[in-house]
Amino acid sequence: MKTPIDTLLIHGHVLTMAGDGVGYLADGALAIQGNGIQDVGPTDRMLSEYEPENTIDASGHAILPGLIDCHVHTTESLLRGVAQDIPDYMEKAMAPYSRALTSEFWLAGTRLNVLESIKAGTTTSMDFTLPYPGWAEFYAQVGVRARLTPRINELAPNAMSEAKGQPYAFDSTKGRAEFEQARTFAKRWHGAENGRITVMAGPQAPDMLSRELLIEIKDWAERDNLMIHMHVAQGDREIHQMQLRLGMRSVAFLDELGYLNDQLFAVHLTEALDDEVELLVQRGVSMGVCSGCIGLLDGIVPPAALFHSKGGHVGLGTDSASSNNCINLFNEMKLTALFNKIKARRPDVIPAWVALRMATIEGARAIGLGDSIGSLECGKQADIILVDLGALNLSPVVQAPIRNIVPNLVYAASGHEVDSVMVAGQWIMRHREILTLDESDVRRTAQEAAVGISLRVLADPQHTQLGLLDAMQKGRL
Amino acid sequence: MKTPIDTLLIHGHVLTMAGDGVGYLADGALAIQGNGIQDVGPTDRMLSEYEPENTIDASGHAILPGLIDCHVHTTESLLRGVAQDIPDYMEKAMAPYSRALTSEFWLAGTRLNVLESIKAGTTTSMDFTLPYPGWAEFYAQVGVRARLTPRINELAPNAMSEAKGQPYAFDSTKGRAEFEQARTFAKRWHGAENGRITVMAGPQAPDMLSRELLIEIKDWAERDNLMIHMHVAQGDREIHQMQLRLGMRSVAFLDELGYLNDQLFAVHLTEALDDEVELLVQRGVSMGVCSGCIGLLDGIVPPAALFHSKGGHVGLGTDSASSNNCINLFNEMKLTALFNKIKARRPDVIPAWVALRMATIEGARAIGLGDSIGSLECGKQADIILVDLGALNLSPVVQAPIRNIVPNLVYAASGHEVDSVMVAGQWIMRHREILTLDESDVRRTAQEAAVGISLRVLADPQHTQLGLLDAMQKGRL
Repeated sequence: MKTPIDTLLIHGHVLTMAGDGVGYLADGALAIQGNGIQDVGPTDRMLSEYEPENTIDASGHAILPGLIDCHVHTTESLLRGVAQDIPDYMEKAMAPYSRALTSEFWLAGTRLNVLESIKAGTTTSMDFTLPYPGWAEFYAQVGVRARLTPRINELAPNAMSEAKGQPYAFDSTKGRAEFEQARTFAKRWHGAENGRITVMAGPQAPDMLSRELLIEIKDWAERDNLMIHMHVAQGDREIHQMQLRLGMRSVAFLDELGYLNDQLFAVHLTEALDDEVELLVQRGVSMGVCSGCIGLLDGIVPPAALFHSKGGHVGLGTDSASSNNCINLFNEMKLTALFNKIKARRPDVIPAWVALRMATIEGARAIGLGDSIGSLECGKQADIILVDLGALNLSPVVQAPIRNIVPNLVYAASGHEVDSVMVAGQWIMRHREILTLDESDVRRTAQEAAVGISLRVLADPQHTQLGLLDAMQKGRL
Repeated sequence: MKTPIDTLLIHGHVLTMAGDGVGYLADGALAIQGNGIQDVGPTDRMLSEYEPENTIDASGHAILPGLIDCHVHTTESLLRGVAQDIPDYMEKAMAPYSRALTSEFWLAGTRLNVLESIKAGTTTSMDFTLPYPGWAEFYAQVGVRARLTPRINELAPNAMSEAKGQPYAFDSTKGRAEFEQARTFAKRWHGAENGRITVMAGPQAPDMLSRELLIEIKDWAERDNLMIHMHVAQGDREIHQMQLRLGMRSVAFLDELGYLNDQLFAVHLTEALDDEVELLVQRGVSMGVCSGCIGLLDGIVPPAALFHSKGGHVGLGTDSASSNNCINLFNEMKLTALFNKIKARRPDVIPAWVALRMATIEGARAIGLGDSIGSLECGKQADIILVDLGALNLSPVVQAPIRNIVPNLVYAASGHEVDSVMVAGQWIMRHREILTLDESDVRRTAQEAAVGISLRVLADPQHTQLGLLDAMQKGRL
């Protein structure tokens, strides 16, 4: 008597990511029941044991856990490509665009961003933004997994541009309002959609909130068992502020506040010193690395290889289309591997399998979801992608003495080879068609919003200070 | 009375790459007659002046010169992904695969490589290999532009592995045979297919031929007006050999031989010192940079930014799918820009427009074809690609105050957005369908060949020395 199940995927090159490697299974199958994985094994055995309602032949495809984007600001996607190749990106290139990107545009940005990420195989997004109506509802509707972080920032308006070498001014009324809003949001959404949507506490960065508010947020997160998602040591600007205000660097300050434990997911660490990295790993902190973004904006390679080699969990993030231009974990796997080889001047630093683990099981652990996603194992959520290994740029496929699938997924794939995407047992994309969203509508509304933003920037007298106007005038854009 | 022409492309975002920027033309049109570009201008004027046989509406697309791959070993594509993340790649990972990749497999590799490159918008390939039957004929048939370099190498068989710290042994009979073969090949193919196929002289590297043969090759190239395509300063291994054999570094040796002039296209320059770069630029030498390959193999960023800043022409190369995993100029543009930012720790090094020029007009100049390809100008060859700017990862498109098209083409595109490819006035790909090749046949023969090669490697006792067997055993591949 066979066991009835919803779906059986058969004949795939399965990369379970279980164990401490990639968990490759030739001619593998996956049994899916409800929102979970019921079994993983050789196709022969699985066919003999299960009676599926739907059978999917995955011949010629890799079957992988869905990829995890551990850090992204989705609303920014409307600003893709307006601010590259320029030092002091925030002030010289983004400022008037950031002002013009007001809340009525945010949903159009989130939709574009999430659609792009699904098409590149991302099934979980850690979206960090000020909450707005429709934000979480959109994730609920589109069906991907979301770990949403409502931003809490206490800086006074224009605090950064007006600081002039002094500590940033705080606005505690604003800080408290954002904190209150975050608590309300977390109450409503943490664990929603059968656990598909969860929430993290999001104090934006150590230099952007007062000590008092940081302590209150930590107490709240501990009480409500929420992890903390925070930018840490994200640039020399931050370190300078911390020194100016408190006479200490970010990591030491957070240690003093009791932030450094396994509930903290620290993003960027661009400026973290080697001994700070060691301390963070010792304390159980996890790291988010946004290689594409930090490489493009700053020409810097954050210490992900060191963090990993010390035994810490590292997850990958795209950050934003305005800083990184693409929302694609295949891009992040590749750049993280390549940038760290260049930093160390060694080709064996961050090999392909490690990059793939960072995008899957290591990323899941880094954000506290290691028990439910990140690998294809019995009892985990059915977050799965199928990648077409017949794509020209992934061909040929060989098995012995050296199997070439994992290096090609990391160094040759672009994300367009992702054929199908399932989250919590539901197909979100089949044969590159998104099933839960109208793609042309997403593109159209994003285009209209972006044109609206550009018109506002043109109407903003400050736009004449844009550093890239020179490149426009010289015919370079 | 309107002028009759073959094809009019209208309503495109035209990047002519003429002048010293990107030559952007909003709502632009391109008139194509025979194999050449007859006119470029605003759609309104072009519609009023020309009577086309075919009109193509390129709304929502960028129209660009076809991309130029300045250095590639196409036969290697069958070895994609078997040799990553390992120091001493040639000896520890490639050796048994290189031995097994005998000539009967080469055409299958070239076909796979060229097909992949067309799909990513490459219209010209500088293919460097030992000539084999069917090599040039394939390029003639498929319709892309080729600048073929028949390899000349004088090393004795196993010279590298058997050198043991001594200078490599030469085999002048083999060197002369390859030289003779190259001359025969050049006579047959230089200027063939109405100039679409041309030939360069290809002494492989300064350490791989004797001084005498290098001089003869240079004399031949001068007499027959062929440029020279050569690996120079490609690694510390080469520099060590040069010191050992001649007591001088590669660049000084080539200067002594009279190689350093505008007829030399020098590839890699991985180990070139700053003053060597300055000398090369002064002498008019051009540089080929294979960022993906050298980053992945060596963790090194060659001095392309310096070469460019001194006024030298830099072209981009993919090198090989065995070293770089993908044959994609979009990938090379992005990595060249990002790697050089990281090397300099500055975001304004190699901005997007410079990377795009390296893949088009600068590359064309670097390989001596600046008068015929690399930009969309009246009288040049009609080598053109259409890129779908409606692709999610290239959306939205905005025009003012900052236009985002060029940064997005360089930092967000993956090559899959290339919709159509024309070479010398002929469509090679339309709506991603290759018109001159059977794609499934190319994939099938490549797969069969690769499996055959793997079986040979398994039968080669030396395969037990493969450095990656450990990763296989540990479940990391």
